[in-house]
Amino acid sequence: MKKAVILLSGGLDSATVLAQAQQQGFICYCLSLDYGQRSSSELLAAARVAKAQGAAAHRVLQLDIGQLGGSALTDKTIEVPTGGVQPGIPVTYVPARNTLMLSFALAWAETLGAQDIFVGVNAVDYSGYPDCRPEFIHAFEVLANLATKAAVAGAKLTIHAPLMALTKAQIIQVGMQLGVDYSLTVSCYQANEAGYACGVCDSCRLRKEGFSLTQHLDPTRYFNALDQC
Amino acid sequence: MKKAVILLSGGLDSATVLAQAQQQGFICYCLSLDYGQRSSSELLAAARVAKAQGAAAHRVLQLDIGQLGGSALTDKTIEVPTGGVQPGIPVTYVPARNTLMLSFALAWAETLGAQDIFVGVNAVDYSGYPDCRPEFIHAFEVLANLATKAAVAGAKLTIHAPLMALTKAQIIQVGMQLGVDYSLTVSCYQANEAGYACGVCDSCRLRKEGFSLTQHLDPTRYFNALDQC
Repeated sequence: MKKAVILLSGGLDSATVLAQAQQQGFICYCLSLDYGQRSSSELLAAARVAKAQGAAAHRVLQLDIGQLGGSALTDKTIEVPTGGVQPGIPVTYVPARNTLMLSFALAWAETLGAQDIFVGVNAVDYSGYPDCRPEFIHAFEVLANLATKAAVAGAKLTIHAPLMALTKAQIIQVGMQLGVDYSLTVSCYQANEAGYACGVCDSCRLRKEGFSLTQHLDPTRYFNALDQC
Repeated sequence: MKKAVILLSGGLDSATVLAQAQQQGFICYCLSLDYGQRSSSELLAAARVAKAQGAAAHRVLQLDIGQLGGSALTDKTIEVPTGGVQPGIPVTYVPARNTLMLSFALAWAETLGAQDIFVGVNAVDYSGYPDCRPEFIHAFEVLANLATKAAVAGAKLTIHAPLMALTKAQIIQVGMQLGVDYSLTVSCYQANEAGYACGVCDSCRLRKEGFSLTQHLDPTRYFNALDQC
C-alpha cells in the first residue's frame, strides 16, 4: 500500500477527498494548517474527520501568515462578507494559501517517502480563487517534480485534485456514497468554537445550496435555527 | 520605485542579493524564515544585514517544519557532516525548503503589491540541492504567475536569482564591489549563539574556499583560531 498526504481543512471537500484516497487504497497522512483562520473549530473538525475515517496520522502545522494580513480569514479588521456570493475574487482569499499548503504537503511527502498528495480544491464553486484552477495544480505538480531529492532520484510525484470539476452537490453525492459523515465537518468561515455555522458567509451558502440539490439532509448546525433544514 | 521581497537568510549569498536589488532601485522588504535551524545566529545576522543595508523592513516568519524531520539542519539527531563536501544531495538538505520560502515570499509580495522576489540560490556551489536549479526557479515563477489575485489581474511576477551561475568567489567579488559587510553575515550550519563558525561544515568550507580565491580577507569568526585567516 502506498502512502499519500491529504490536505485536510475540516470542511466538506477535503473530508470527501480523504475518503476517495482511502478508497483508492492509500495509507493516508492528513495535514492541516493553522493559519490563524477565524474559526479554530475547522481544525477540531479536521481532527474528528481524520479519526473517524481512520487516517494513519493527522498533523497540524502552524502557517505563520497572519501578520502579513490581506485576507478576511486572517485579519479580524476585514469583515467576512455575508450578503451572498459575488463575482470576482472575494476578500476571504488568503494570499498564496494553496501554494503554501501544497508546499508543506510536499515537505511531508518527501520525509514520508510518499509520491501522492491529495487536495480538495474545486474550480466550479470557487472559480474566484486563482489557486483553485486546474492550471495552478498542474504548475505545482511540475514544480514538485523538480523540487525534491526524490524527484532527482526519478520518483514521480502526483497532485490529485479529484473534486476539480465537480459541483458542491456532486461532491456531496460522492462523499455520501463513500460513507463520509458530514456532521463532523465545518465549512463556515466564521463558525463558533462549538462548530456552529453562520449560514450566511459564501462557504455556508455554497454548502447549503449543495445539499439542497441532493436528496440528503444538511447536517450542519447553524447559529440561527431558521437556517436548519 | 518598485517594491521587492528579498529572502534573507543571514548568510553571504542573500546579503549580496539584497545589495544587488538595492542597486537596481528596488525598495527592499526582507523576509527570513525561522525553520528551527540549528543556528539561530543566522537570524540575528539577517537582522543586522537588513539594518546595515537599509532595508525598508525585515520580517521573521515561523516555518513549522521541524517536526517533519528529514534534515540535519532541523533534526538534532542527524549530525552535520564536517569531513568535506561530498557529491550528491547532503543530509543538510531541508525537504521542500526553497519551495516553502518562495511561497512565503509570494504571499508577502502579494499583500505588498510587489512584483519582484529575489532569492540567493546558486547552482554552482550547491549543485547537490534540487531546489537551487534554474529549472526549479523557472517552474516557481510559472506557478507564481498562476497563483495570485495579482496574476489574474495581469501583473507579471518575476523571481530574480542573480547568483544562479556565479561561483562563491564571484559572489564575494560582486558583494565587495557593492559594499556588503560580510563580517555581519553567518554561513555556518552550526554557528554558536555569538555567530562563531565551525570552519568544517560544507557551508564553512565553501565560504572559506570562496574567500581564498579572491583578494579579500575572510571576516568570518571561527571557533578554532587556526581557521582564521
